[in-house]
Amino acid sequence: MTVSCDGVDYHGWQSQPGQRTIQEELEKAVSNLVGFHIRIKAASRTDAGVSALGQVVNFKIDSPIPTERLAQAITQRLPRDIEVTEAVEEDDSFEASALAKSKLYRYTIFTGKKRNVLQARNCWHRPGRLDITTMKRAAELIVGTKDFKSFAAAADKRESSIRTVMQCKVTQEDKWIYMDIEADRFLYNMVRNIVGTLVEVGRGRWPAEKIVEILEARDRTTAGPIAPAEGLCLMWVKY
Amino acid sequence: MTVSCDGVDYHGWQSQPGQRTIQEELEKAVSNLVGFHIRIKAASRTDAGVSALGQVVNFKIDSPIPTERLAQAITQRLPRDIEVTEAVEEDDSFEASALAKSKLYRYTIFTGKKRNVLQARNCWHRPGRLDITTMKRAAELIVGTKDFKSFAAAADKRESSIRTVMQCKVTQEDKWIYMDIEADRFLYNMVRNIVGTLVEVGRGRWPAEKIVEILEARDRTTAGPIAPAEGLCLMWVKY
Repeated sequence: MTVSCDGVDYHGWQSQPGQRTIQEELEKAVSNLVGFHIRIKAASRTDAGVSALGQVVNFKIDSPIPTERLAQAITQRLPRDIEVTEAVEEDDSFEASALAKSKLYRYTIFTGKKRNVLQARNCWHRPGRLDITTMKRAAELIVGTKDFKSFAAAADKRESSIRTVMQCKVTQEDKWIYMDIEADRFLYNMVRNIVGTLVEVGRGRWPAEKIVEILEARDRTTAGPIAPAEGLCLMWVKY
Repeated sequence: MTVSCDGVDYHGWQSQPGQRTIQEELEKAVSNLVGFHIRIKAASRTDAGVSALGQVVNFKIDSPIPTERLAQAITQRLPRDIEVTEAVEEDDSFEASALAKSKLYRYTIFTGKKRNVLQARNCWHRPGRLDITTMKRAAELIVGTKDFKSFAAAADKRESSIRTVMQCKVTQEDKWIYMDIEADRFLYNMVRNIVGTLVEVGRGRWPAEKIVEILEARDRTTAGPIAPAEGLCLMWVKY
């Protein structure tokens, strides 16, 4: 299924005792529909505060409901900030996480002076000018198959930190800045650490070429600070 | 001060034990700034879930901070879904509620089929077509100095239910419908009851002229069901 979610009020995807999570809400809705407990897996275990327009999840049921009516039936059982936008039948071997070829995350920054409470919920509110031209140049240096250890949270203990970034684009519309990053897989906090670093470039602390130096260092402390979770949104997963 | 607020996560304006309210957050922020407890009054005591772009509030302090810097200093102490957009010094006699000449509320309906979790938080999600032309005609019948008892919650025990509605306008932009209602004062739940009734007209249950009949009945049960709080937003208060 493809799932949209305003993640600001959730403690991320993964079920945790005493916390409101997206996995828990989805499992409750599907279990309620089919009459027994269903375990659901996601392509991306998003962090607290992170949103999604194209999260992909999988589970196995013998549904009494035709697949084409499943999305609506589950959405009706979900809180208003989660929606199942599509449900399709897949092979038994389908795994939303393991079979993903790439994912694209969009990070949104609102640079207006005012807080804009109704239109700027899913973004990082960061008033002040950023040099978009230099940020675009820095973003290009992120693209490719590289060791992204400097952009991974220290907590990420996976063996290899080599990933392929297919695109890293910075665009601007009025007071909004978007950063779209597509990669085969992501290290923990990788997008938010890249964004935080691009913002350091944009505000003039570093030149664009600093990215090369940071990548070579393979050391988290050389990169910029992590950007807040609220600006991050999983846009789609490709298979 | 003029205050904006995404009200979806709040139990309305008025402080209540054990509930998160806008008044409580504002009083905490201002009290924290000036160093002693400040009581704040609002032009409109909005209900749970209701938002505001132009709420007006008043309080009395001997501020150590210049008035022109007050808005920002208070906003910094507020959660990200509340913002003080302006602070001005007024006469000692100023009362945001008592001196208001009129207020305008906007009610937003999203008619798209999909839930649209990131863009449709502050609205009533009501998929399906509504006959805007007939709704516009019905809305005109709301305008004027009339007895609005049929549109007041039964809990509203104020003596007179006569109010003056200066404008009641229905507009449409793509899948969004806006209803703007300006009145001198509002009865409890008046906007949401008018909206719920206009929607009954829009979906073809009643002709536009039903409004005249409902107004004459002076009986809440003759009007349509109440519209959800999330679609309601206080746009401005006039003095």
